[in-house]
Amino acid sequence: MQYQNLPYADVHRFCIKVFSGYGFTPDECEVITDVLLCSDLFGIESHGIQRLIRYHSEISEGYAKVAAKPVVVHETPISAVIDADKSMGQVISVHAMKLAIEKAKSTGIGMVSVRNSNHYGIAGYYAEMAVKEDLMGICMTNSEAIAVPTFGKRAMLGTNPIALGFPADPVDFLYDAATTVVTRGKVEVYNKNEKPLPDGWAVDTDGHPSSNAGEIINNIINKLGGGISPLGGSEELHGSHKGYGLGIIVDIFTGILSSGATSNHANVTEGLNDIAHFFMAVDYNLFGDKKIIKERFSGFLQELRESPKADGKERIYTHGEKESESKKQKMSDGIPIGDKTLAEMKMIAESQNIKMDDYFRSL
Amino acid sequence: MQYQNLPYADVHRFCIKVFSGYGFTPDECEVITDVLLCSDLFGIESHGIQRLIRYHSEISEGYAKVAAKPVVVHETPISAVIDADKSMGQVISVHAMKLAIEKAKSTGIGMVSVRNSNHYGIAGYYAEMAVKEDLMGICMTNSEAIAVPTFGKRAMLGTNPIALGFPADPVDFLYDAATTVVTRGKVEVYNKNEKPLPDGWAVDTDGHPSSNAGEIINNIINKLGGGISPLGGSEELHGSHKGYGLGIIVDIFTGILSSGATSNHANVTEGLNDIAHFFMAVDYNLFGDKKIIKERFSGFLQELRESPKADGKERIYTHGEKESESKKQKMSDGIPIGDKTLAEMKMIAESQNIKMDDYFRSL
Repeated sequence: MQYQNLPYADVHRFCIKVFSGYGFTPDECEVITDVLLCSDLFGIESHGIQRLIRYHSEISEGYAKVAAKPVVVHETPISAVIDADKSMGQVISVHAMKLAIEKAKSTGIGMVSVRNSNHYGIAGYYAEMAVKEDLMGICMTNSEAIAVPTFGKRAMLGTNPIALGFPADPVDFLYDAATTVVTRGKVEVYNKNEKPLPDGWAVDTDGHPSSNAGEIINNIINKLGGGISPLGGSEELHGSHKGYGLGIIVDIFTGILSSGATSNHANVTEGLNDIAHFFMAVDYNLFGDKKIIKERFSGFLQELRESPKADGKERIYTHGEKESESKKQKMSDGIPIGDKTLAEMKMIAESQNIKMDDYFRSL
Repeated sequence: MQYQNLPYADVHRFCIKVFSGYGFTPDECEVITDVLLCSDLFGIESHGIQRLIRYHSEISEGYAKVAAKPVVVHETPISAVIDADKSMGQVISVHAMKLAIEKAKSTGIGMVSVRNSNHYGIAGYYAEMAVKEDLMGICMTNSEAIAVPTFGKRAMLGTNPIALGFPADPVDFLYDAATTVVTRGKVEVYNKNEKPLPDGWAVDTDGHPSSNAGEIINNIINKLGGGISPLGGSEELHGSHKGYGLGIIVDIFTGILSSGATSNHANVTEGLNDIAHFFMAVDYNLFGDKKIIKERFSGFLQELRESPKADGKERIYTHGEKESESKKQKMSDGIPIGDKTLAEMKMIAESQNIKMDDYFRSL
């Protein structure tokens, strides 16, 4: 695939135009676009503008409702459950994290579980919302089942990511990772490049470890069995039961606490996008002087980064550094967009009578 | 090593006698013994009575203080920070989880971070305390650095386990796992059996993957460098950065929020046992009708257990099942105790003028 860099401001203006074409309010267009492009800026192409086509079809076919009417179905001073009414994931999720932040500022903690939603992009975006308010932020989501439990052969859990952000200098800590070894996107890349999968990434329809990327992707698409392995790999020997358990934990906070669907019932391909999320903000003044806590944490991260490097490695990262550096670079150099994604953007533009030339002079 | 099964009641009575010999109150003796033997009952020998010798020396040498005076140094209706004053880990930890439970019953949530403590046994014990009160329980602890960051070659993080319990029928969910691939004990077993370590378990002093169990153990003991890999293995390709990040997260809740020591400063071997813990209880009525939530969660776990098995496997477990079944079996058949541990028990008994015959007629 060929890539070209398009200026952030142009891509942003284009996305706003597209989403307003579906009927979203100006505020909603800002929110959806900001979450979407944050992923590209962070260097996580899989969850960025290359997903525009997916959102386009979900919205066009009515799985994601433009005029959704989310309802808070349960609430206390420190918690809430929201039925998203099949809202765009980004819209309800920014709303839910704002509610969690508001509660944290008032009581010290806010926890909001959301059901009946759609894909929301990257979990880290919402955790970072809390960090920007000098709070700890936690975010999780379940997703369509793609991960196979230890000793199983059917996908029962989503990639079920966990994100946690905590303020630090000079760069905030921002962890955002699937509870599986990898996500589907990485297996697809191996398939496209006709490379065998690394050990421990996936299991076949018998539940045995497999390195056949084409077969795995085919099995996932046609629901033939098998799937991706939990963090820890395909065998208990390497800790697969640990990742499997973390996947269950994410479903507790999302599908269970929201009284929504668990991963094994969230069926995106058939248009039943009942995804569930969890948002939490904690004011860490609950544990003492924030200035001192933040300073000590910043020092700890610094110690990790400055600890001796493995032979052949120049740098030890702490989580959030790569994203922060990628963002700076892409804000100045533009967002790399692949041919295929660009073709999809053109198709969407045509369907809305948007002239690409009005947005991207360089094309 | 030869094992023999000793009746639970006898081992329990013996431990109570030993701990009272150090000067602990009857309540404290009960607490320490209960945590210690819970590990053996769960089938986790590494954290059970085989550690008695370690506690014996920590107490005898004054690293764990019998007459510790823990202080609550910061408190809100939903949180607390405790300075443990080098208390026995089990004593302060049961106290801290009780405080978290009390707060959760009053406000919905309780979070207690503890500094300046010692090893506390298995994290799952404390999470289960909350479950027994029909609450969600979370517990974490840091520990002496033994895990090497991705791209590093010096151990900077402990095994840093995370435990989470949630009520379910017919068996509660109880996750308790290190954020490393394995714990030191498993590497020691491979060394004793002169077997090469599985891929991804450890790295050598250069930060390269190593299967040499003897070398790894020697490096750990003599602090020569290298160590155990984070959950996900020795390389980013398999997700090592995810386990590395989870290890940092545990240090946020423990060493950082308590203003105590982080893993890289918790130096057990030199007698500076400033370990930090975190305890959290959540009344899940914050999210709706508890009966319905528990029923749905029980059903989800059932679906996981009943999903198709990998060829050659007869059963899919949910976390807590193995422990629950092991406990029933060992309460009836006795606790298996190895020769080496038994010899250590005899040595400790002698030092306290305890006659083994008074406790174990079968010996």
